[in-house]
Parts: sequence; structure tokens; C-alpha cells
Amino acid sequence: MDRIPILKLGHSLLVTIQVDMHDRLAMALEEDLTQKIVSSGAKGVLIDISALEIVDSFIGRTLANIAGVSRMLDADTVVVGMRPAVAITLVELGLSLPGVRTALNAERGMALISRRVAEADRDGAADAPDVHGDE
Amino acid sequence: MDRIPILKLGHSLLVTIQVDMHDRLAMALEEDLTQKIVSSGAKGVLIDISALEIVDSFIGRTLANIAGVSRMLDADTVVVGMRPAVAITLVELGLSLPGVRTALNAERGMALISRRVAEADRDGAADAPDVHGDE
Repeated sequence: MDRIPILKLGHSLLVTIQVDMHDRLAMALEEDLTQKIVSSGAKGVLIDISALEIVDSFIGRTLANIAGVSRMLDADTVVVGMRPAVAITLVELGLSLPGVRTALNAERGMALISRRVAEADRDGAADAPDVHGDE
Repeated sequence: MDRIPILKLGHSLLVTIQVDMHDRLAMALEEDLTQKIVSSGAKGVLIDISALEIVDSFIGRTLANIAGVSRMLDADTVVVGMRPAVAITLVELGLSLPGVRTALNAERGMALISRRVAEADRDGAADAPDVHGDE
């Protein structure tokens, strides 16, 4: 496989990582995601890693990179489905996944993104001048 | 990889097929899906095949099997993200994927399932005796 599929669902893009990511696949994913964020106007990126038994420093860096680029494009990154053993290993390795939020499963991750979109809409509406008059 | 991850989102279970399915993986997926339909009470199964460049008779049969078993458990199966070339090949092979519904992408597939859930709720509410009196 040369590409990891990216699904659009509501305000989010969903990626399920099922295979060991080598350099080229990780780069392709980063590139595809950035393009899809721009073309779809997505506000969040959900990355499911429930299939991964090991998250090494390379994958950790890839996730942090994706989060960094997504933030530049005004989208939050949420990593979901992390196995307990993976969490333990990450902490032991000192990899804190900067800029990456986590949620227990895809449903909660999606709810997290929806909540932030709703908050942003509300704040935006409050800040914006009232063009509708006394509506 | 020995398992394809299954994500629960709302009323649906979402599976992204990214790798060539051999016999054991397909059987494991069928088994996992049936268990997860029962444990989660999901009303729909979304299978994304946008990563597949080829759908042979084995994968076609697997999809039809999953649809058959899901229907027994009162869940609809929707295959999403089929590439044009795959659709052409399936028709040429005479594989019509019986019992499988299709949608262009995950978002539309999810909408299809939500609509059927809403219809079922409405019909259920209409058929059920009015236990709430004149509420």
C-alpha cells in the first residue's frame, strides 16, 4: 500500500493506521492530510492507532509533525484508541506527543472536535459585529 | 497485522480495509464485527474500500458474507469509497454484491445509516402501543 486512506466525517478527517509506517508512507500521509484539510475545510484530524502494538520514536515524531502542520491550518489533532501498553512505552521513552490531544476512542475524539467547533462558532459569533441588527 | 480495527461512531461501526485480505484476516473481521454489533448495538456497518485497487471474488464474497451476517443481527452494511475501476471490474466479473448497499464516501454512507435508524425509530414509535396515555 502506498497511501493511507483519509475519510471525511462531519468536521473531521479520520485516519486509521493499521500498518507499520515507513518513511515514505508517513510523508505521504502528512502531505495528503494537509491537502485534504485545505480542500475540505476540516477542523479536526482523528488518528486511530488501536491497531498499533508499538509506537516508536519515529511514529511519535510523525504524529507530532501532523499535529503541528494541522494546527497551522487551524485543525486540531486527536489520537484515539491508544493501547495501555503503548501509553506506558511512550512515557518510558519520554515521548510526550507535544501538541497532540488524545481520546479513549473514536467516538469521544469526534465529540471533542465537535465541541471545539461549537465553541469556536460561539466565540466567533460573539466577537463578530452584529450585522443582523436587533435580530 | 492480525486484526482490522473496528471503530464505533454513533450508530455505526466503521472499518477501513487497507491491506490485502487473506482468509484468516477476513474470518477474523467477520467474527469481530458480529461480536461488536452485538456488544455495541450498532445499526450499521460502514466498510471503506477506497484503498483497494482490486476487489476479487474472494473479497466480494467476504463483503457479501459480512452483509448477510449483519442483516441477521439487524444492522445494514454499506460499502463506501469504491474506485471507479473496481466498480467496472465487479460488474465485468458478474459480482453484484448481494445485500450490500453502497455510498460514494463515508459521510454519505453514515448519513444513509442515520436515515434508516431515524425511519426505524419513527415506525417503531408509530407501531408501539401508546403506553404514555395522552402524553
